[in-house]
Order: sequence, then C-alpha cells, then structure tokens
Amino acid sequence: MRIGVLTGGGDAPGTNAVIRAVVKALIRREGAEVIGIEDGYLGLIERRVRPLDWRSVSGIVAQGGTLLGTTNRVNPLDHEGRDRRPEVLAHAQELALDGVVAIGGDGTLAIAAALHEAGLPTIGVPKTIDNDIVGVERSFGFDTAVARATEALDQLQTTGHSHGRVMLLQTMGRHAGWIALEAGIAGGADIILLPELGFDLDAVAAVCRQREAAQRYTVICVAEGVRSGEPPSPPGIAETLAARLQPLLHSEVRAVVLGHVQRGGPPTASDRVLATRYGVAAADLVCAGQWGCMIGLRDARLEPMPLSTAAGRTRKVPQDHPLLACARDTGVSLGRATQG
Amino acid sequence: MRIGVLTGGGDAPGTNAVIRAVVKALIRREGAEVIGIEDGYLGLIERRVRPLDWRSVSGIVAQGGTLLGTTNRVNPLDHEGRDRRPEVLAHAQELALDGVVAIGGDGTLAIAAALHEAGLPTIGVPKTIDNDIVGVERSFGFDTAVARATEALDQLQTTGHSHGRVMLLQTMGRHAGWIALEAGIAGGADIILLPELGFDLDAVAAVCRQREAAQRYTVICVAEGVRSGEPPSPPGIAETLAARLQPLLHSEVRAVVLGHVQRGGPPTASDRVLATRYGVAAADLVCAGQWGCMIGLRDARLEPMPLSTAAGRTRKVPQDHPLLACARDTGVSLGRATQG
Amino acid sequence: MRIGVLTGGGDAPGTNAVIRAVVKALIRREGAEVIGIEDGYLGLIERRVRPLDWRSVSGIVAQGGTLLGTTNRVNPLDHEGRDRRPEVLAHAQELALDGVVAIGGDGTLAIAAALHEAGLPTIGVPKTIDNDIVGVERSFGFDTAVARATEALDQLQTTGHSHGRVMLLQTMGRHAGWIALEAGIAGGADIILLPELGFDLDAVAAVCRQREAAQRYTVICVAEGVRSGEPPSPPGIAETLAARLQPLLHSEVRAVVLGHVQRGGPPTASDRVLATRYGVAAADLVCAGQWGCMIGLRDARLEPMPLSTAAGRTRKVPQDHPLLACARDTGVSLGRATQG
Amino acid sequence: MRIGVLTGGGDAPGTNAVIRAVVKALIRREGAEVIGIEDGYLGLIERRVRPLDWRSVSGIVAQGGTLLGTTNRVNPLDHEGRDRRPEVLAHAQELALDGVVAIGGDGTLAIAAALHEAGLPTIGVPKTIDNDIVGVERSFGFDTAVARATEALDQLQTTGHSHGRVMLLQTMGRHAGWIALEAGIAGGADIILLPELGFDLDAVAAVCRQREAAQRYTVICVAEGVRSGEPPSPPGIAETLAARLQPLLHSEVRAVVLGHVQRGGPPTASDRVLATRYGVAAADLVCAGQWGCMIGLRDARLEPMPLSTAAGRTRKVPQDHPLLACARDTGVSLGRATQG
Repeated sequence: MRIGVLTGGGDAPGTNAVIRAVVKALIRREGAEVIGIEDGYLGLIERRVRPLDWRSVSGIVAQGGTLLGTTNRVNPLDHEGRDRRPEVLAHAQELALDGVVAIGGDGTLAIAAALHEAGLPTIGVPKTIDNDIVGVERSFGFDTAVARATEALDQLQTTGHSHGRVMLLQTMGRHAGWIALEAGIAGGADIILLPELGFDLDAVAAVCRQREAAQRYTVICVAEGVRSGEPPSPPGIAETLAARLQPLLHSEVRAVVLGHVQRGGPPTASDRVLATRYGVAAADLVCAGQWGCMIGLRDARLEPMPLSTAAGRTRKVPQDHPLLACARDTGVSLGRATQG
Repeated sequence: MRIGVLTGGGDAPGTNAVIRAVVKALIRREGAEVIGIEDGYLGLIERRVRPLDWRSVSGIVAQGGTLLGTTNRVNPLDHEGRDRRPEVLAHAQELALDGVVAIGGDGTLAIAAALHEAGLPTIGVPKTIDNDIVGVERSFGFDTAVARATEALDQLQTTGHSHGRVMLLQTMGRHAGWIALEAGIAGGADIILLPELGFDLDAVAAVCRQREAAQRYTVICVAEGVRSGEPPSPPGIAETLAARLQPLLHSEVRAVVLGHVQRGGPPTASDRVLATRYGVAAADLVCAGQWGCMIGLRDARLEPMPLSTAAGRTRKVPQDHPLLACARDTGVSLGRATQG
Repeated sequence: MRIGVLTGGGDAPGTNAVIRAVVKALIRREGAEVIGIEDGYLGLIERRVRPLDWRSVSGIVAQGGTLLGTTNRVNPLDHEGRDRRPEVLAHAQELALDGVVAIGGDGTLAIAAALHEAGLPTIGVPKTIDNDIVGVERSFGFDTAVARATEALDQLQTTGHSHGRVMLLQTMGRHAGWIALEAGIAGGADIILLPELGFDLDAVAAVCRQREAAQRYTVICVAEGVRSGEPPSPPGIAETLAARLQPLLHSEVRAVVLGHVQRGGPPTASDRVLATRYGVAAADLVCAGQWGCMIGLRDARLEPMPLSTAAGRTRKVPQDHPLLACARDTGVSLGRATQG
Repeated sequence: MRIGVLTGGGDAPGTNAVIRAVVKALIRREGAEVIGIEDGYLGLIERRVRPLDWRSVSGIVAQGGTLLGTTNRVNPLDHEGRDRRPEVLAHAQELALDGVVAIGGDGTLAIAAALHEAGLPTIGVPKTIDNDIVGVERSFGFDTAVARATEALDQLQTTGHSHGRVMLLQTMGRHAGWIALEAGIAGGADIILLPELGFDLDAVAAVCRQREAAQRYTVICVAEGVRSGEPPSPPGIAETLAARLQPLLHSEVRAVVLGHVQRGGPPTASDRVLATRYGVAAADLVCAGQWGCMIGLRDARLEPMPLSTAAGRTRKVPQDHPLLACARDTGVSLGRATQG
C-alpha cells in the first residue's frame, strides 16, 4: 500500500501530530509506504514528494507548523489558468499512490472531493484554528489558538487594571467567533464581540461607561470578522472600534491585534492528543478503504462524513449556543444590551 | 434565595472559576445571596462563612486553588468521633440557606448526598484532576494536569536525547491512568504505564533495549497508581521502576516525580471554560430546584445525574478505549508486549 | 518614619515586586509606616492614599501591573493649567511624609527631581520595559518584554517555515532598540532593525531574496521606533515595511504588531529578583537618608545616582555594543549590508 | 582552520545556542571548518565526529539539550583503566584539528586544561545550571533553571494556600544554593534553605508555627545540597525535612522534588542571549589564538580566564551576598533565626 499525505491552507498547531499519526498508524498496521507531498496540492502538480518513514516523523508531535510545507492558493482545478487534474492523476499513477490523505481547511477538502470524483481516492482531515468547519465540533489547533488569545487577555488585564483603560484584543475568526468566545470567557473579558452577533456601538460604550463609573477598567475581546458597517474597515476591527469608542469614553482605549502568533508554535497537550486521534482515524479509513470521506467530530466522537460536508459552508456560533448563555450568566456583554 | 458554596478535597485548577460562575449566575438570574463556606464541610460544622458578592469573585477565573479553602479529611458524618449532621443542619437553618453547592471529589459528593438525605438540599459539582469520577467524561482541572505533565515530558525529551538515557516521569493518577495516558500521547512517550493495564518488567526492559540498539533514548510515562508487586512500594513507582530497570539496561535511568505542581497554578484556557460551564450548570439546577443532583458530562454535554452516581466507584480507562488504540498505533508500548 | 510610594508611567512587569520590597524592607528595618499614593502624582495632588502594611503587599511578587494605579500624563508642575507643587507639599505635610519613593520612567523621575528641589524628599526607582534610561544597564520589566517578544518570534518561526513567508514582528522600543535586539537574537531572527541603525530597504530585500533563493523563509524583528522616511508612517513600521517589501519579493510578507502584551502579565523570575533588588536598594537609601537619588545599575551593581541622571536623555544601543557584534557574527543582518 | 566542538557533563539549556554561535562565528569570520565531536570526550577517544556547517546549526537557538550528545563520566585521562590522551592527540591530528572548544562543567574544563597541556589546544566554555563555577558570575542555563523552579513555586503557592499547608520544593544545587536563592525570592518563598547556610530545624518549625498562628500557609524552597545531619539522607532533603517537620506542626507538610525538568526544555530568552555571547566570545578566543583559556564573566563582562580557574573549587553563595540581605529584608527566613 502506498499512500500520499499533504497539508493545505493556513497553519494549525497539531498538523505535524496528524502527519505523524497517519504515517505511524499506516506503517504499523499495513506496513504501508507513505509519501509526503510537498507544499500542498502544488506538490501533486509538480510531482515534488519525499518518503515519510517512521524516523522521519518521530519527535514531531510537539512541533508547530507542517513539515510538508503548504500554500494557501494553489488549486489543481484551476492553476495558472489551466485544469491540472490530468497531471495530478498522472503523477499519482506514476507514484503508484493508492490514495491521498489531505489535511486542510474547507478549500483543501473541496479540492480533495473533486480529485476523488476525478479518480484519485482521497480522505480529508479537517484543519482550521477558527473551529468553523461544518461537521467538526472541535478542530485541532483551536485549543492552542484559544490558549494564546487567553494568555494575551491575561496580560492585558494587568495593563487595563493599572491604567484604568479600555483594552481591546482582536483574535482570529474571520467568519465565526469561536476563538473570541472561548478566549473571552477564559480570559475574563467584560465584552465579547462576535461576527454572528454584531454589536451596537452605543451598547458597548454604555458598558464601558458603567464600569468607568464603578472605577473599573474594561477588557473587550473581538473577533477579526466583526464588522463595523460597510465597507469593511481597513486597519482591523480592533483599531476601528478603538477609534470610535475613544470619543465616547473618559478612559484611554488601546487595541492589540494578536495575529499569527495564534497559529504558530507548539500545540497544547490537548491539541496534540486530538490531532493524534484525527490522524489515527484517517489511517483507519484508509485501512478500511473508506475513501471519499473526511473525519468529523460529533458528540465528542470521531466519525467519517462525506467530503462534501464542509463545502461552501461555515460553522458559525448559533444564537442558542450554551457558551453564549454561560457568557451572559457570568456578566459578559455580547455587544447588544448593556449588562452590569 | 440564599445559597451556600463550599469546596472540598484536593486542589483542581478551575475551582475558582466554578465558584465565580455559580456566584455570578445566581446573582444575575435570581438576585440570590451567595454565602461562601470556609474550609469545606468544616466551615459548615464550625459555622465559618462569608458573603460572596459580584466583586468578591471578579478577576478569579484565572486563579489556581480555591478562595474558600479546603480540607481533605473532614466528614460531618464522623468528625472527631461524632455525627455532626445536627450542627450542620442547625447552622444551615441559622444562615437561612436554601441549599448548598458542593464542589469536590467523590468523597465530597458522597457527603453531599448524605446531607441531602438528612434534609439539607445540595447540588454537587465533580472535581478531580485525575478525571476518574463516574459519570464525568472530562472534569475541570484534568486538562491543566495533562498540560503540566506534558510540559515535563517535553523537558525530559531533551535530557533523554542528549544523554541517551531512559527518563521516567511519574504523573498523578492513583486509581486511574487518564493523566499518564493523555500526557504520554501528547508528550511523545515511548512507553506508557497505567494502573488499569499494569506492566511486565521484561517487556518494558525489552522496549528500552530495542531502542538502545537503535541509538535511541526512551521516555516512560507512568501513573502513580501503577503497582510493581505487593505490597505497594514506598518511594513511588517511578523510583522503584528505575531501580528495577537499571540493572537490565546499558543506559542510565532517571526518575522524576512531578507531584503537586500538576494541581497548582492557573488553569488552562480550556479548563477555565469547562469550569465556567460546570458552575453555570450548577446554578441552573439551583434555579430549577433540582436538588440532590450532580453535574455530569456525557457525550460532551453537561447533564444532571444523581449525586450517588459517583459514590464508591472509580472511572477507569477501559481496555477498549480509543486512546489506547491511538497509543498503540503510534508505536507506544503499553507495558505488556514489546513494540518497535 | 512615614514614607509614601507611588508608581508612574507605563506598565512594567515587576513594579509590584518593587513596591513589595520597599514596603517590607522599610517595615522590617525601620518599623516604618508606608503610605501608598494612588494613580501616580495624581494621588499626591488629590490626596488619595492608603496604608501599605505587610499583609497588603504579600503574595504580589508575581503579579503584573501595579496595585497603586498609574497615569501617563499627570505632572504636578503643570496639571490642568496650574503648578500643583503647593498642594503636593501641603498634602505631604498633612500626611506627615518623611519622603516619597517614586517608581517610574524618565518623566516620573524628572518630576521627582523637581519635587525634591521644591522641598519634598524623593528617591527614584527607574522603570521602563524599553531599557532606555540613562544610568541603568538593565531595568526590571525588560527581561519580561524580551521573553514575550521571543516567544512571539518562536511562534512566527513555524508559520514562516510552513509557508515560506517573510514574517515581521514589531516589538516595543520607541527610542531604543534593546528589546528588538535581544529578542531578535534569542528568537533567531534573520534581520533585526533598530532605531539606532535605521535600515536600507534594498539591503533588507536583498537578504530576503537570497534566502528565498536558498528555499528559506525569513524572520524580521523590528523595533517600533524604526523610521521608514519622514514623516513617521501611521500604521506602524512593521506594516509599512511589509507593504514596501512585498513588491520586491516572491514570498508573502506578513506583519505582527505585538503591542501591550509585552508589558502586561507576570514578570519573569529574573525580573522579580531584579525588581526586589531595586526595591530593597531604594529602602536602603531611605534608611540612609540619601534623598534626591535614583537607583542606577552599573557593571551589574546597583548604586545611587543623581535623580537628574536620566533626565532628557535616552540610553540608546551604542554602535559598538557587543550584542551587535554577536548578532552579526551569528549571521543576522542589521538592515544595512547584506549577509548570507 | 579546523576546529572541534564538544559538549560534556549534565544538560544545560542554552548549550545548542553556544554551539550555534561558535560554529556561525567561526565560519563567518574565518571561513573555518567546524567539526562536531560526539558524546563529549568519548567522541575524541573513539573518533566519532561529524561536520557542523551553517545549515546544521540553524534553527537550534531555542532547543534544549545538545545536538552533539554528552556523557557524564568519560575522562580521557583514565578511561576504562587507561590514559587515552595518546589516542585523543592522534585523532585530533588525523582530523587536522587546530583546537577544540569544550563546553562543559568543572570536570569538562579540567580535562580541557589537561589536554591543552598535553598538546591539544583547547578553549573552555563554562556550563552549569547550578551557577557554581568559579570565575563565572552567571552561567547560561541558570536563568532557565531558576525560571522552572519559580514556576513550580508559583504552582505550589496556590495549593499551599487552599489547604493551609507547608509546601517544600527541592531545587537543584548540590554544592551551592544559587537556584534555591533566586527562585525562592522570585517565587515568594517564606523560607529558603541553602547548603552554604544550613538550617536549624527548630527555627524552621518556629517560622511555620508563627505562620500557622496567623492563618497563613508556608512555602519552603530548599536546595538539594542542604544536609540534615550525617550521613546524607537518602530520599532527598525535601522528603527528609518534611518527615522531620510534620510532627512539629499542625498543617500537613508536602514535598516536591523538581528534578531534571529544571535542565531540560527550551532556554529562556535571557539564556539564549547569554549562551550566544559565550559562543561568540569563544570564537573570538579561537580567532585570536588565545588557547588554554575559558570564558569567564565578571562585572557583567565576558573575559578570558585561565582554564584552571574553575578547577577543584565551587562558587558558593557568600555570606555577605546582597541577595541574602534582599531575602531577609523582604521577610524570608534563611533557616537560622525566626522571622515574622
């Protein structure tokens, strides 16, 4: 058995742990040869590969990034103006691949679905720090992103407190507010703003002013995908919001945009375990010949789902999600009505 | 409404986050008065309490320990030779308590059940870093303990590597091996030993020797509850095992006993969120008048369970748990047969 | 003996450790009463104070921020249009203060000097995470800032590596590049840009292109005070530089502005020790009646210096500083000539 | 120019950063060929070496351990019953080495001195996490060890507080108490015990009892080298002390032995910078042909010292060290007289 592995899309801590688990499980259970495909689908187009044996994936469970490289934008269905599926299929045949495990976000999974239909058996492992892939309750990398954002909130708490300031932290989350929601709860934010809920500037300012009146500083956690009116404001929502809040408040308002540090560096222990589970589950599907699936997570259990599950949709925070109630019940304002 | 809150048993990071969530949710939803009972059940016996208002629990979501104090051994059913239930009930009546939320391990929960039967309404929040309470898939504090143990394994990896040593880490887990299992997977241990599986010294030594032969060092993660024969060995299983392995190996063998650092310090972001969920769920039960229950976690959902659920039993790692397969599939020896 | 303590200026981790050391040392050695002055010099103008006894400063050695509050802009020499020295002196007399220990940056120290001349005995403790106060080889808070920036670089390394990107990190350091220099060395930056040295865009781009040609990604650490031409560019030098580099390179260029997380949160162990030393040294000066001084650090020894030492000057990285040679010798480009 | 590099003795975080700096500086400045000698002096005896080029040391500044391997006990002057200097000299000649940079503790440096006298030019870089090498004010690895021990103290604070316990932490430091002293100050220990000062059990118990009387818990930081009478107690001083204190106190007493986690894992930012400075300084000596020296640190400046400087002596904490006064002034008991 010869199986290819590739990684696509943005960094998610735990990706190397997935690769390691796929490789080790396939070797141990099937004596498979595993082929690492470099730089995502580009490696399939350009036939750039290298063998992945047991040693080559030892000691990487704790490493951030991906040892296979990645690219954000290469799509074999339309690469530099042409459909490259013929090359991809030819290369897969030359390499004698029985199939490919593709680790990536919704774009990567959609391509995997298309290649599967075109005749290259694929299995998808969902990857997103934003936790916004449909069918996946909790993606690896998310816990690490939340941990990083929470640590930043912990640090901003002390500065907010010393100076009596309003401190804004912008987390990742372009389409869904999961990181901001969990980090906001964990980091004791007073206000959490999500793309799913939007916000009312007056309500936000009112909470800050109530707190000022009680000699208290305010910490706001805002997902990058929150919009402050059309068109989307260029410098980032945290800075836009800071500029709009400042005239309404006595306190100084400061914004911090956390950025890529949320997706780099070593995964948390929890993400390493989860990533290992995803990798072993993918190997299980390979061994079972259950191609054309991705690994989903439902009710805390990994299970195969159609590769199309995630396509073209985003898993948003639903209005009735229990964590929203948790936030409200512990006094967090969600940007609409004032709370004390 | 007047509700008492107490914490019993050993430290678990996240306990303050539970207290905070219980207090804030009860104040926000019911305008309740919340009374903090000091030093676990001892505070009920001695009537040592203090009010917990909104401010008194602000800013503690990230703090380790418990602001209410705790004791390991005080049982109102038999304290200093007498049954103290009459005093407890009298004090509860004097304090006009409508009920008590007890945050603690199986001992604390069993007492809560007895007090409930005796006429003091109680609700239990399960607390254990060992993750071994029946009915609770994942207890708060566990993620932090796993994170600490994993960090220690990361550090021992470098020393093991430089010196070509066998490094043993002893984690907490007297009756169940959950911490050792998850930390061992996350920390890339080569051998994981659990109380549920025991071990065969020759098999462990054989794995170490195989690795020596391949110029590789070995990291072993062992739960404190693992036994190396009867009677239980006094200095700790890691040291016992090191002493017994050393004559069988060429490499130096070193043992580290991690101890209380696993249960102190700030909770991980994930534990803070989970603890907040437990606290809000406990407040929900109070509001619903659903006394005599504890909060369980099943299929990733919090739900009420009888307080007796956890009594006298331990949630062990079952022989068919998927993480055991994950460990084996990624080349971890579980102490029985040799693996390469 | 009655001594006031105040904190001014921006946050520096370790400030609470200084307060604690001043208070404890003065109580232990002189049985002094110590008075905490709230919100920097504003508390002296408005006579807002509170007693600081042994218990009130216990357990704060590890806390970020300052328990006394602070303000950035209040100057008793010119507050809301008036000279407030008369009120300050009157309040000091009413409070029976024998003197004031002022913990702050060059602004705070300059005011302390003026108040000293006006008749209120003062002692200064220099505080800056930028490490740019004249007479002070190493200020408390600096080590923590470097640690935070280094951690961010560690995280950007993995993302840079996976994507083959150019990653830019902007550290604090408006006038001096100490944080960028030490963090850049510690974090393995390929290019370090300092206000003292400036940079040549073509040289920076050439280094990136050389690295691209060798299939290597590039990490750049840039101090916020670096200028890219006049007038200063509004969105921050990292973003400006990213925008100017991008057209010259094949790789994607990404910028991260670290911001206030560098100055919040718990101090490193090293900063806690250093801050304790500063605090005890300030108490020594108080006991010796050596008013009008600040604590300097020269050749690794704390010593009293005139309060005027720091006034109106900035301690910049000298062109012949050994760390610049260290950086060059380990292959770091400092933004002028290309290096491989 | 061909230069060998080796690492001896116990792990110290920062060792890889030294290797990297030596290699890069020698390549950059002299175009030198650098040869890595494996497993300390054993690699010289057995002629096991590998080239170290620019790429092979890239990206290791943050890695713990040593990429060259190490051994604790091999001495070419007496290895398996014979003097191996002839083999060492012959291998050095075959390899055309102009000299060797030896990174290690006092044992490694003493051997380097002997080999230098025997005709193999050597330069020593002092390495010890204990900070106890004569001539070296601050060795790389020490800051990391202090940081780890401080983090453990932070964690034990919360457990001590919740349970009203006496918590004992045993740090490394067989002959000198530097780690215990700095970590104890940084971690807010109430009692610090050093080999240099010894302790009086009654005084220690009296401090604990005073604190019990005031409803306060106690944290004790003890260096492993502290003795509790002759002969040295087998299970470690923390456990011995806990057993002896327990009968004298009401509180529970718990001991934690931190062990090897202090010397594994990534170095702090500060240690990475210091290690880089040591490495570049060693390369400076090589370039200057100043063989037979080690790099010392005096008054915060690196300077060459005779290789014999460190031999047979230990740098202990002097009785008049300023940090001892700092500790006492902030209320720490040093194990002799009681303090409140």
